[in-house]
Amino acid sequence: MRYELYYWIHIQGRGEFVRLALEEAGAEYVDIGRESGPGMGVEAIRNFLQDQSIEHLPYAPPFLKAGKLVIAHTANVLHFLGPRIGLAPKAEGPRLWAHQLQLTVTDFVKEVHDTHHPIANSLYYEDQKPEALRRTKLFLAERLPKYLGYFERVLKANGHGCTVGRSLSYVDLSMFQLIEGLRYAFPRNMKRAEPGYPGLVALRDKVAARPSTAAYLKSPRRLAFNDKGLFRQYPELDELQ
Amino acid sequence: MRYELYYWIHIQGRGEFVRLALEEAGAEYVDIGRESGPGMGVEAIRNFLQDQSIEHLPYAPPFLKAGKLVIAHTANVLHFLGPRIGLAPKAEGPRLWAHQLQLTVTDFVKEVHDTHHPIANSLYYEDQKPEALRRTKLFLAERLPKYLGYFERVLKANGHGCTVGRSLSYVDLSMFQLIEGLRYAFPRNMKRAEPGYPGLVALRDKVAARPSTAAYLKSPRRLAFNDKGLFRQYPELDELQ
Repeated sequence: MRYELYYWIHIQGRGEFVRLALEEAGAEYVDIGRESGPGMGVEAIRNFLQDQSIEHLPYAPPFLKAGKLVIAHTANVLHFLGPRIGLAPKAEGPRLWAHQLQLTVTDFVKEVHDTHHPIANSLYYEDQKPEALRRTKLFLAERLPKYLGYFERVLKANGHGCTVGRSLSYVDLSMFQLIEGLRYAFPRNMKRAEPGYPGLVALRDKVAARPSTAAYLKSPRRLAFNDKGLFRQYPELDELQ
Repeated sequence: MRYELYYWIHIQGRGEFVRLALEEAGAEYVDIGRESGPGMGVEAIRNFLQDQSIEHLPYAPPFLKAGKLVIAHTANVLHFLGPRIGLAPKAEGPRLWAHQLQLTVTDFVKEVHDTHHPIANSLYYEDQKPEALRRTKLFLAERLPKYLGYFERVLKANGHGCTVGRSLSYVDLSMFQLIEGLRYAFPRNMKRAEPGYPGLVALRDKVAARPSTAAYLKSPRRLAFNDKGLFRQYPELDELQ
């Protein structure tokens, strides 16, 4: 199966959680927005979202085409892909558990995003700076430890150096991405917080060392974090709480 | 199968999307928080979340116990339950499509919640009123029409008076709940907006008239909307945009 990923091209964003899974698995895929030629490029994404004949229209990217299926929402895409590319259990119970963890990742990522956009996505960060500062203070003091503490506890309870079962899953790749993103966005706060989450840090290192993932991270396919993505580095928001 | 629903007892909240499905299906379930006796009541929920021996620990309610499985996240619970209680297709493609729509409901509900809590969940509304007003203005002007327009378009594209396939699904019950909640929270804005979404309004009426759901809505099991839930009525936030 050749998968087609539809996602914006200038940010890691939510699409990166899918890219990491496809890359680690060595799956055959086309990153539609970043290719050129007929049916490729950002225009292809826009055209798709305008196409009145699409039966199952996504609300927004990322979405994946797999044969005739069109699947949207990051966690849903990973839920579909996971067992097919060897990155999630096939049995229903553990598969739903992986999905449940990924949905908690989704919630966390939304809260990270809203630190710099507490009022509206349609406004620039510069238009909501006082609100962003207020929200971020409470995010760093309350939400960051709650989410990271939860994932650390899940890792410990599982006991195999990964979040689900005995082998690497897409949830572990998402843990890597969370730690990387948080380190980028909040270097001072993360430096202080990380000793409290040794399992997550070890998992981050383990994922980074996987040959496929390591090759991907060094490739031009891995975009850099930047000031348009989910994780943004605004030093004024990274005051130690 | 006797399902056990774990959710807070004073609000409809996210648990209501699950309750509506269980009630419409006539499924056998226990609303653990609202029963008394051993292993029941709010204490039982708190104890569960503190229990170090739980293999698949939820991040937060609602969650469902189904035999040995513990499933958290509203959309994940509905994804699991749907085909089992006749409220979602069994085939993978349509089932993932229903789930995808429900995940868009999840995102929408989070944005509704953040109209009155744009800074932090841990603060009272009264402590974030200027920010709430600013966020709500943009929510009503930009987000409400985007989400409702999307669901209206999905309904039209499907063409059977429901969102998925040819029969009622849990997604339709969630559409009912969204319209009800929005009418409660933003009566003035909804009165003006609703003529633009005739499909959704007709679907809301159709769901309300289903015998099982109608009986549930009249029963004491249906909590009233109130000022602690997701949908809150603050008249100062309901200025026409």
